[in-house]
Amino acid sequence: MTDSQTLASLVQKQLDEFLASRSSILSQLGEDVSGFASFSREFLSGGKRFRAQFCYWGWRSIAEQSASATIEALLPVVRAASALEIFHAAALIHDDIIDNSDTRRGAPSTHRSFEQQHRISGWDGDATGYGRASAILLGDLLLGWSDEMLDDGLELIDDRTVARAVRADFVRMRTEVTAGQYLDILEEQAWRSHSDAAQLARARNVIVYKSAKYSIEAPLLIGAAIGGASGEQRRALSAFGLPLGIAYQLRDDMLGVFGDASVTGKPSGDDLREGKRTVLIGLTRQKLPTNQRRILDEMIGDPELSMEQIAALQATIRASGAADAVEELIARNVAAATSALNGAPLENGAVNRLRELAGHVTRRVA
Amino acid sequence: MTDSQTLASLVQKQLDEFLASRSSILSQLGEDVSGFASFSREFLSGGKRFRAQFCYWGWRSIAEQSASATIEALLPVVRAASALEIFHAAALIHDDIIDNSDTRRGAPSTHRSFEQQHRISGWDGDATGYGRASAILLGDLLLGWSDEMLDDGLELIDDRTVARAVRADFVRMRTEVTAGQYLDILEEQAWRSHSDAAQLARARNVIVYKSAKYSIEAPLLIGAAIGGASGEQRRALSAFGLPLGIAYQLRDDMLGVFGDASVTGKPSGDDLREGKRTVLIGLTRQKLPTNQRRILDEMIGDPELSMEQIAALQATIRASGAADAVEELIARNVAAATSALNGAPLENGAVNRLRELAGHVTRRVA
Repeated sequence: MTDSQTLASLVQKQLDEFLASRSSILSQLGEDVSGFASFSREFLSGGKRFRAQFCYWGWRSIAEQSASATIEALLPVVRAASALEIFHAAALIHDDIIDNSDTRRGAPSTHRSFEQQHRISGWDGDATGYGRASAILLGDLLLGWSDEMLDDGLELIDDRTVARAVRADFVRMRTEVTAGQYLDILEEQAWRSHSDAAQLARARNVIVYKSAKYSIEAPLLIGAAIGGASGEQRRALSAFGLPLGIAYQLRDDMLGVFGDASVTGKPSGDDLREGKRTVLIGLTRQKLPTNQRRILDEMIGDPELSMEQIAALQATIRASGAADAVEELIARNVAAATSALNGAPLENGAVNRLRELAGHVTRRVA
Repeated sequence: MTDSQTLASLVQKQLDEFLASRSSILSQLGEDVSGFASFSREFLSGGKRFRAQFCYWGWRSIAEQSASATIEALLPVVRAASALEIFHAAALIHDDIIDNSDTRRGAPSTHRSFEQQHRISGWDGDATGYGRASAILLGDLLLGWSDEMLDDGLELIDDRTVARAVRADFVRMRTEVTAGQYLDILEEQAWRSHSDAAQLARARNVIVYKSAKYSIEAPLLIGAAIGGASGEQRRALSAFGLPLGIAYQLRDDMLGVFGDASVTGKPSGDDLREGKRTVLIGLTRQKLPTNQRRILDEMIGDPELSMEQIAALQATIRASGAADAVEELIARNVAAATSALNGAPLENGAVNRLRELAGHVTRRVA
């Protein structure tokens, strides 16, 4: 198996089987709860499956895992990849509540979907509260399920030391991304109490934990651990994954400000309304004169920003030179990532695929 | 070890060691995140530790586990019990967001504590949103940690079949209680679309999944699984735990309406403001004439109910005979639970302790 379509379909098959088995537990509670399960099926059917791919190619990079391996041989890594996708779905559901996001992948976010269900059904009480409560619980359910899916994969690994190493990477990722998320929201509230230089350093810290480790380094290491990676191999994958993850998040920050809704599935300028204190914003603040910086600070984080105000902010950020600076940072991090692969003790075929993926996840789309 | 003080202190020691090790991961993200960890330490230092006790006595009921067993021999069950306590803390943190509860154990609930931190620090943005977001993330963190604590216990069990059985009980509990919670909030919104009889049946279903299985049956079975329980022993513990769990929740419902704030740590009549559709309310509705039932329906779920209105509702519920009916249900379920222990293939000393616990968790307190 070499192509990402095949991986995506293997992951989807695992997810479908898993959700079907869990739905049978839920249906014992009654028909209404089956409806709860169908939200998770819907939410888990989409997405780019980046994390699954990095997990798979992390595994392939370790040993000459045959491209024509049987499904049985692939199952541990496919299940670990599926566990990452379930975890990610849970994180997005909670993230959308936290960020007050109305949309995800061009469709209503989960809490808004539940809210709509409430309105359509004409129930009593507060639709917003019901939407939020249901989405908190659905996220909790999926957090637990991601863990079960991982265990289903680990059960197939005879070597307990290997299984323990995989699990250690997975749980560390879980703690780090959750703490990184907290740091992110803390920064939105508390940025004013830090100097400009400290703000930039803190924005970079958020990127490392919330995104770079989580989205790329951890999936690579989890896959590699299944392959029984050596310390040297793990260090090579980290030296690739961490700068690539930073570049990936910087691209995401650019899309959050300049991205087209048809590409991102989110309204244009969404990060500006949310008040995200990204590296892009940190650099803009550094480059602006005091009076303009004050205006910027007042506008960012206002959920009611009009399209005209968004356009004005976009122009200010570009004119400051911060957007170009971020593009350069992205290029530099991608270069650092790919050069870490040179001469690394990793399989050639997988290294080539990792180089392609590096370009793919950091490419300009607008 | 026979006394619950000792168990509580062993559990606390496991929790302290665990939190210290996880804090060192968090502190890598910076000082602010250590503050995040201290909220979890605070929250995990209190509570009645009922679940830990049922887990422990479930274990003791299986084999003649010596009352003077070494700490090493106790560690698997003490860690499983600690995992239940961490999971419960996570569930309470999210539950308080869902129910909009301001207090927990007489102190501010977690989201309100974060909110206060925001206000005291004079940060930007929305204190309520920050409080909620932080508490969602702290709950997520603890959900993951509960799982790690369980694994730390399972690592000490050589028999993989036993370890798998323990984990299966734990993950089933997690799915069932989360789905049960969802059913509970759904019932608060959608009760009007069901007949009176259906409402009562549905309230009972919520009790079984959200509370009876979760609070008592599952901890017993998890402990028993560590002891290598037979099918017959598991059935005996379920026959005890399920009716006892129902009685326990019915008592909790009574306290939610009639309880004294100094005992419950929550404002008196809190469940009435929240609009909980309990068996107590279902029975009251059945017993009231139509016009009184309409007034009841209008008042229940109004977060602004005054102390006078609460007192009037309490009087109505008592006068209807529903409170007496619930007391009778509690007594009947406790009797069913304890009689299930007669002649059960369980250890005598543990059975005696389970009888005591049954009285303890369902006792009138006002």
